[in-house]
Amino acid sequence: MSKPAVQRRIRVHAPPPGVEEYDVLVGSGLLDELPRHVAAAVTAADRFAIITPEPVGELFGERVLAAFGVAGLNAALLTFPDGEVHKTRQAWAALTDRMLELGFGRRSCVIAMGGGVAGDVGGFVAATYMRGVPVVQVPTTLLAMIDAAVGGKTGVDTPAGKNLVGAFHPPRLVVMDPLSLESLPHDGIRAGLAEAVKHGALFDAAYLDWIAANGAALVDGRPDLLEHLIARSVQLKAAVVAADPFDQAGRAVLNFGHTVGHALEHATGYSLPHGFAVSIGMVVEAVAGELMGVTEPGTAARIRLVLAGLGLPTAPPLESASRWDELAATMRRDKKAKAGVVHCALPAAPGAVLPTAGGDWTHAVPENLLRDAVQHASPGSELV
Amino acid sequence: MSKPAVQRRIRVHAPPPGVEEYDVLVGSGLLDELPRHVAAAVTAADRFAIITPEPVGELFGERVLAAFGVAGLNAALLTFPDGEVHKTRQAWAALTDRMLELGFGRRSCVIAMGGGVAGDVGGFVAATYMRGVPVVQVPTTLLAMIDAAVGGKTGVDTPAGKNLVGAFHPPRLVVMDPLSLESLPHDGIRAGLAEAVKHGALFDAAYLDWIAANGAALVDGRPDLLEHLIARSVQLKAAVVAADPFDQAGRAVLNFGHTVGHALEHATGYSLPHGFAVSIGMVVEAVAGELMGVTEPGTAARIRLVLAGLGLPTAPPLESASRWDELAATMRRDKKAKAGVVHCALPAAPGAVLPTAGGDWTHAVPENLLRDAVQHASPGSELV
Repeated sequence: MSKPAVQRRIRVHAPPPGVEEYDVLVGSGLLDELPRHVAAAVTAADRFAIITPEPVGELFGERVLAAFGVAGLNAALLTFPDGEVHKTRQAWAALTDRMLELGFGRRSCVIAMGGGVAGDVGGFVAATYMRGVPVVQVPTTLLAMIDAAVGGKTGVDTPAGKNLVGAFHPPRLVVMDPLSLESLPHDGIRAGLAEAVKHGALFDAAYLDWIAANGAALVDGRPDLLEHLIARSVQLKAAVVAADPFDQAGRAVLNFGHTVGHALEHATGYSLPHGFAVSIGMVVEAVAGELMGVTEPGTAARIRLVLAGLGLPTAPPLESASRWDELAATMRRDKKAKAGVVHCALPAAPGAVLPTAGGDWTHAVPENLLRDAVQHASPGSELV
Repeated sequence: MSKPAVQRRIRVHAPPPGVEEYDVLVGSGLLDELPRHVAAAVTAADRFAIITPEPVGELFGERVLAAFGVAGLNAALLTFPDGEVHKTRQAWAALTDRMLELGFGRRSCVIAMGGGVAGDVGGFVAATYMRGVPVVQVPTTLLAMIDAAVGGKTGVDTPAGKNLVGAFHPPRLVVMDPLSLESLPHDGIRAGLAEAVKHGALFDAAYLDWIAANGAALVDGRPDLLEHLIARSVQLKAAVVAADPFDQAGRAVLNFGHTVGHALEHATGYSLPHGFAVSIGMVVEAVAGELMGVTEPGTAARIRLVLAGLGLPTAPPLESASRWDELAATMRRDKKAKAGVVHCALPAAPGAVLPTAGGDWTHAVPENLLRDAVQHASPGSELV
């Protein structure tokens, strides 16, 4: 072993492709123009697989399929059962096998249409079909539009946890039609607005104020306002994604509200919707940030006011707040935790975020401070 | 629809990573130095999953695991049943679940050790584990060393066909130890040599002559000669991969011998080993190339002489040659076929390959010429 065994060293250059740049189109009525924009963005495709959950297929499937037909494009509708419980390797394999049965070849293109689950599953089918075919993301929920559809993350859950199997597979195009939100209930709009508040709280105080000023009309689903909201949130998220395409550093900042939020979802057996959990999580984490001296005093109160104005919850459910040990255990297992120490992404002030002295985008938060923050954020507290 | 619906267009830049460049190390004794080279190439990894088929695990598993232990690196051995029938989504899911059970995190690294199946399955596990972790390829068969381990293709078969699900996931490092071939039977060496002959026939006439001059010693497994062979074949293949990382054009040239070869494998129910089928396929396709005027006269005879000198078959099995309709049907379904027209990659002369006038790297070959070529390549023919 003293003589090195390496006799030859060949360096392989495999230049990555130049396709990691894509447009996000936002506009009312875009769903009917989908084929034209898809054909322009994915010129090499000769066949299109529209992958969508059954309820979304029922709402928009025939209409979109007809539009492809009118445009002279060869498309098929592939549906799968709705819900996070179907974000599985089984659904992925079944959709893949269905495409193979239908004879889809290497020049196929997947259109992933629906909420976050559709984007994740459809995107993962595209990422692995014959070693990868293009995907166009067509989110039809507000949460998917401003959060999931941009960034290239695809994947499925396994019995061991969420998003444990997947791939980074940036879309070739993202198409967002605010009119597709018309069928969404108010709570569905609110869940998306929570993530928009997150973008404002982290990066843009003026945006935070704009959301607050237009709260009622946004919850009501006014298309022109939603269009502005979607576009601004996508811009803010895109800047973070561009700086950290593979979620290795800066993208962690987008987890503001999510450490506590995930723990609350888990503690309530996922009866608390994700957007609501994040809403509460942002208030709790901002309070903890203030207690640590990382976050400017008053930040939590300002965020809380915006969220409350949108009809979003801002206080932990009483029962889960009392089960602190369970919350703490979940947060220690969170993907942002390091060596069992709970970490949170925290704003420095409304609309501003800074890395730690060590250059990280999440902060180690002592559990006793988080516990205090949960209590302070609960009803009757004076701090918030 | 006369007024365009696009109100906003946000361009997302997601710069690809700079990791698509990797070293291929070739040297006798490298297997014992594996941990040192892996640690140098994959600096961010904190845990290593060695994925290998059971027989390879029995041969080298304990030794490699011990070397990781000595180097102070945290490694685990994960085996799966041997053979192409286990190159499935089920094996991929089981290996993934085993890694999850063992608590492998996002800073894991997969070591795929074994033949082509190990590289494909292990590589696909790495490509999709928590949206992708690095993989180091450690091929232990000659075929895998000079063919499969370089190029980044990973994947599994489905009931509908081979390699239909997968990803491009370039390795961080490839380590090839000719001494690991010592346990390989002569036919295993021969199968690999067929692909080396292909590299010489397409790109380097002097290399073709060198293989011919050293045939007996190569089949006998002389490590210094195998080292040279592996290194030269990897250099030649790496140049093709670099020009076409995603197998969209020029890489098709590496399919010389494979259109007919795959059809023969299929016709014999896969009792004919892949390397042997490619050997026969190269002779048949070169004859067809000569009949078409694409390939310089005498090329087929020269390739045939080198292959025969290595103890490789050069004539189609009599029975399959007589079942022409079946061979033709398989070739029309081949992935290189276009609109049902059979296509072959063909050398222009020994060591030289040229694109068609249309810029393609495969040629449309009339079926009657292929049929003649199969007959001419069969025993008793005067042409070859």
